[in-house]
Amino acid sequence: MKQVKKVAIVGTGVIGASWAAFYLYKGFSVSAFDPAENAQENLKNRVSIYLQDLFELDQIADFKQARNDLLDKLHFCENLVDAVKDADFIQENGPERLDLKLSLYQEMTENCPVNTIIASSSSGLKVSDIQQSSKHPERIVLGHPFNPPHLLPLVEIIGGEKTTQNYIQDAFDFYRELGKKPIIIHKEVKGHVANRLQSALWREAFYLVSNGVCSAEDIDIAITNGPGLRWAIYGPYLNMQLANQKGFKTAMHHLGGPMMEWWGDMHPYQLDENEIEKLDQETAQFLEKIGEFDLQGKRDEALIEILSMRKKLQLP
Amino acid sequence: MKQVKKVAIVGTGVIGASWAAFYLYKGFSVSAFDPAENAQENLKNRVSIYLQDLFELDQIADFKQARNDLLDKLHFCENLVDAVKDADFIQENGPERLDLKLSLYQEMTENCPVNTIIASSSSGLKVSDIQQSSKHPERIVLGHPFNPPHLLPLVEIIGGEKTTQNYIQDAFDFYRELGKKPIIIHKEVKGHVANRLQSALWREAFYLVSNGVCSAEDIDIAITNGPGLRWAIYGPYLNMQLANQKGFKTAMHHLGGPMMEWWGDMHPYQLDENEIEKLDQETAQFLEKIGEFDLQGKRDEALIEILSMRKKLQLP
Repeated sequence: MKQVKKVAIVGTGVIGASWAAFYLYKGFSVSAFDPAENAQENLKNRVSIYLQDLFELDQIADFKQARNDLLDKLHFCENLVDAVKDADFIQENGPERLDLKLSLYQEMTENCPVNTIIASSSSGLKVSDIQQSSKHPERIVLGHPFNPPHLLPLVEIIGGEKTTQNYIQDAFDFYRELGKKPIIIHKEVKGHVANRLQSALWREAFYLVSNGVCSAEDIDIAITNGPGLRWAIYGPYLNMQLANQKGFKTAMHHLGGPMMEWWGDMHPYQLDENEIEKLDQETAQFLEKIGEFDLQGKRDEALIEILSMRKKLQLP
Repeated sequence: MKQVKKVAIVGTGVIGASWAAFYLYKGFSVSAFDPAENAQENLKNRVSIYLQDLFELDQIADFKQARNDLLDKLHFCENLVDAVKDADFIQENGPERLDLKLSLYQEMTENCPVNTIIASSSSGLKVSDIQQSSKHPERIVLGHPFNPPHLLPLVEIIGGEKTTQNYIQDAFDFYRELGKKPIIIHKEVKGHVANRLQSALWREAFYLVSNGVCSAEDIDIAITNGPGLRWAIYGPYLNMQLANQKGFKTAMHHLGGPMMEWWGDMHPYQLDENEIEKLDQETAQFLEKIGEFDLQGKRDEALIEILSMRKKLQLP
């Protein structure tokens, strides 16, 4: 893979801005483009906050000057061509609409170097679809982060039908060298991996509340005082390994029967406007009980603490 | 509710021992019974380790004498009757078999005070079934913890058909005053709440690996570097609230469509011996890569750190 000095951020909403902060912090020059109104100003403000998170994660207290130096390496461009024309790596964060992606990728691939990897942050679309009308589609990959990307290490990578293996491996190595935790997905499935896992939990969380089993608050209490605490430490496989002193297989022999019974009791669940309204009212009640509380700020503070703890204990 | 001074622990395996440590630490006298061989010795050893966790959670460094004093209040009884006859609260952790539970509850309820609450740690059985042949079944509730109970705050409470509301409320207040995070479940569903949520995630985690989408290691990386980090902070409802700057309803309008597509793509999945074998081999590969590592010790260390962080940030 060629040496990356300049990263282009295409689409500078919440996800794009978070990626921009991450790449700046890792020492890259960043060129950015977004056609939205006030995009430049919003980007600068967001990146400034996200950079602070990153300094705090590394326990650097006196970061004012360093932050200003990094912000000097952020260039907002007047148009897409200027942003991508000499970029060594492109992180794309456009809207989740295939028609928009198709024209965006066409314009990007006609104007950036032929061997520049383009990684899409798309959470829903398939690379095989996105790359259809691109020049040199072999270097287009999924580079799907988890929100907020400047803090959460996960990046999901997969190629489309026209992507070649070397670019997938290059993208994997690139993210890993920057300290991310990339995984390579081997089959294109809807929602990739983490969103499928997450939405499986959401479905049952919605079903239980919708059917009066418990409140939205109860669901959140159950997760954050039960299994959620363990999922920040180990994933489903290592947790199953620990569910029995003899390890995974014995745990599965004990738990498999009951689990299949629970699965059999999980009824199909569909969202519609009425359902969303009902769940929103449940959430509103919970929020009212919480009262004044900076949910997002505290979340990011907590994320930084958990990430530091994971590093300290060298968790796998 | 009557004042609780003495708690009986019936069944002193891993869960029972963890409960015993918790109640001792909270100042109760604990009488315990289990018919298994070496039960008394195993209990003492486990309680001793778990007490250390609790002292560490409260950042008490010099705890040797205090621990010995607490251990003096643990009484292993020769038979069930002695353990429960003057107990003010009973935490039952017997095997998950209805026939065994029925005779156990019959003997307990014939020999303990009539208004002593009996809380079952059962993860699979319904209270309505357990309480069938009990004397004064109105005081029998579910008090389902999450492993390890001495550290994880969640307790799921529900009554059976014959349980009266006052005992459910008393159990809730009792656990809450001890610093637990109890929730009251309003309908008896298989697996209660947290196990259903957890098993929904496990199902998709098994499905994806079984179908070659990614490895067991990838699943665990995805969770512990993505959504799992957030679930230790907020549950599914508050995370959805933060998924859009305008809050829950707008987030659902954006994510609802894609989520329903992912749900539609989640195929029924069944476990059998072949599947368990396949998943076990996947897990074994992951474990081999991790190498020498005290999984359980590190998990509990990490749990203590996350719980302290949650307290410090006063997370809801």
